[in-house]
Amino acid sequence: MLDSETSLNRDRTCHSNETEVPRRVAVLGGDGFLGSYFVEQLVALGHEVTVLDRFRGGKAKNLAALRGRCRWLSGDAGDERLAAQALEGQDIAAVFISASTPLTAWRAPLGVIEDELPLTVRLFDLCARLGVRKVIFASSGGTIYGPQPGRLDENALPRPNNPHGIAKLTEEHFLRYYAAAAGLAADSYRIGNLYGPRQRLERGQGVIAAWIGRIQAGLPVDVYGDEHCVRDYIYAEDAARLMTHSLRDMQSDGIYNLGTGRGTSILELLEIFRSVSGRPFAQRLHPRRPSDNISSVLDSSRLLRHYPGFVFRSLRDGVARCFAWAEQERAR
Amino acid sequence: MLDSETSLNRDRTCHSNETEVPRRVAVLGGDGFLGSYFVEQLVALGHEVTVLDRFRGGKAKNLAALRGRCRWLSGDAGDERLAAQALEGQDIAAVFISASTPLTAWRAPLGVIEDELPLTVRLFDLCARLGVRKVIFASSGGTIYGPQPGRLDENALPRPNNPHGIAKLTEEHFLRYYAAAAGLAADSYRIGNLYGPRQRLERGQGVIAAWIGRIQAGLPVDVYGDEHCVRDYIYAEDAARLMTHSLRDMQSDGIYNLGTGRGTSILELLEIFRSVSGRPFAQRLHPRRPSDNISSVLDSSRLLRHYPGFVFRSLRDGVARCFAWAEQERAR
Repeated sequence: MLDSETSLNRDRTCHSNETEVPRRVAVLGGDGFLGSYFVEQLVALGHEVTVLDRFRGGKAKNLAALRGRCRWLSGDAGDERLAAQALEGQDIAAVFISASTPLTAWRAPLGVIEDELPLTVRLFDLCARLGVRKVIFASSGGTIYGPQPGRLDENALPRPNNPHGIAKLTEEHFLRYYAAAAGLAADSYRIGNLYGPRQRLERGQGVIAAWIGRIQAGLPVDVYGDEHCVRDYIYAEDAARLMTHSLRDMQSDGIYNLGTGRGTSILELLEIFRSVSGRPFAQRLHPRRPSDNISSVLDSSRLLRHYPGFVFRSLRDGVARCFAWAEQERAR
Repeated sequence: MLDSETSLNRDRTCHSNETEVPRRVAVLGGDGFLGSYFVEQLVALGHEVTVLDRFRGGKAKNLAALRGRCRWLSGDAGDERLAAQALEGQDIAAVFISASTPLTAWRAPLGVIEDELPLTVRLFDLCARLGVRKVIFASSGGTIYGPQPGRLDENALPRPNNPHGIAKLTEEHFLRYYAAAAGLAADSYRIGNLYGPRQRLERGQGVIAAWIGRIQAGLPVDVYGDEHCVRDYIYAEDAARLMTHSLRDMQSDGIYNLGTGRGTSILELLEIFRSVSGRPFAQRLHPRRPSDNISSVLDSSRLLRHYPGFVFRSLRDGVARCFAWAEQERAR
């Protein structure tokens, strides 16, 4: 933690004029897994935050500690009247919502056409009409590039074959349209394999959360793939921290990979789990699924040059924190 | 004409085993501008063709001469029952329909989300479910790459900023999904600026057709852009001829640029019109519109290596043929 704090502060000093301007930011899906870490960053930096999320029963899943420090709107971002209420008068909209996951999209590709694209593109359209100056978009590095080996930068040709990645890429392109047609600036972050506390254990998105859920329940973990199946696991809080780049440079308008640049195979991850979990568990090995990429490692130099010396949380430490969080949740 | 005939025949000889297998091909939008040329090629090559198009009043716009030599189905490709009737039992589906144009999509981007994408992706989905082996897809080279200078090949990073190009690119990606998930092979042709007889004069898509329409009506032509605005104009019959590549290699599964590789500026085109039209006309110069790319020239070597010696119709000759066709149409 200390390392990244330090480098973030050092970096902020260089951009102090930009950093100190408080912005009005609407975070759509701001009580979710990654969104909530981003909201925490914004509040700590002194920005004025509106969170739109489904606060079921009026309760936050992740942001309870920030009640009173940001504006909450409860409901569905697909409700245009509500979305307009959240977006009106904002400098920035940060979009963390998604109506699909890689697994649901692979099984039901038309859902991407019927739900995911209309939801997100209509939100961008609304931002443009309401005069929001900038969109921050949580895109997907894991699925946009598709099954290509190697460490990929933003100039690699996207070859998505999972409809979830197709949707995210299409949404990035729509942001380019709204930039050209309406002057809306946008930063898209192609995020690697996110993990961390707050990731839902039962949802099946994110192998680390899924394994922890299985181990807690005394069940064997499912291992899909082999030593060639490498992923770029990034701790959600690190990702949120790096995404605040968009607030320091309001003019920036780009696409940023957001990963550690380090590939971990599924078998290495299993080793880490064995040493960290503190209890025995069984494993079931399966061949790779067609919905999985062979490899996904991101070269994020474009973004990281703005954060010299940034140190990512180690996977071992991150997994340990996930276990600790899961234990706390279970004890509640 | 002779040159390309000769080279096509020479090329066919090399692949004679492949060429001579008659295929069952459904051409969606087969009575349209490019679709009708493609149907003519298929019929000439001995394939068994089903055409689905809106034969208004039971009449073909372009295929009247082929009545009886292919199966006609009249109606909307968005009608799933009708589309299934066209696609059932086919080896190949060729998709020439589009619910958007660059101009309509620029003005109403949500139309792409609401109409164009659902129409096309549902057709691909239906092809996969019905066991069609291959899709031939008329994509767009002019809008997929977006405003990038130079002569671009298929490895250039697509940067579409027009929602029409965004849609075509998204559709190509969905074909990659259906290839991975359902084994459907697909060839996407990123076609340059199509022109030729049969292009509707009143529709506003295609500067050559639009100018001919204006000149026929005694009106000045509108010139958007300057000598830097270059386009890769390709004669529709040439394009259709080259797209028959997909029938010779059923396994081929790829993306092909389809242009001449020669850029013509809007001012050069005006010169050609002056010398070919045979009558005086006025011009109105305007600055480039944001919906227009600065430049669009396609490197089509990937496809053309299968057609050694292929000679494209010259733009001057092609424009003269468009004028002759338009005169005939007017005389009807």
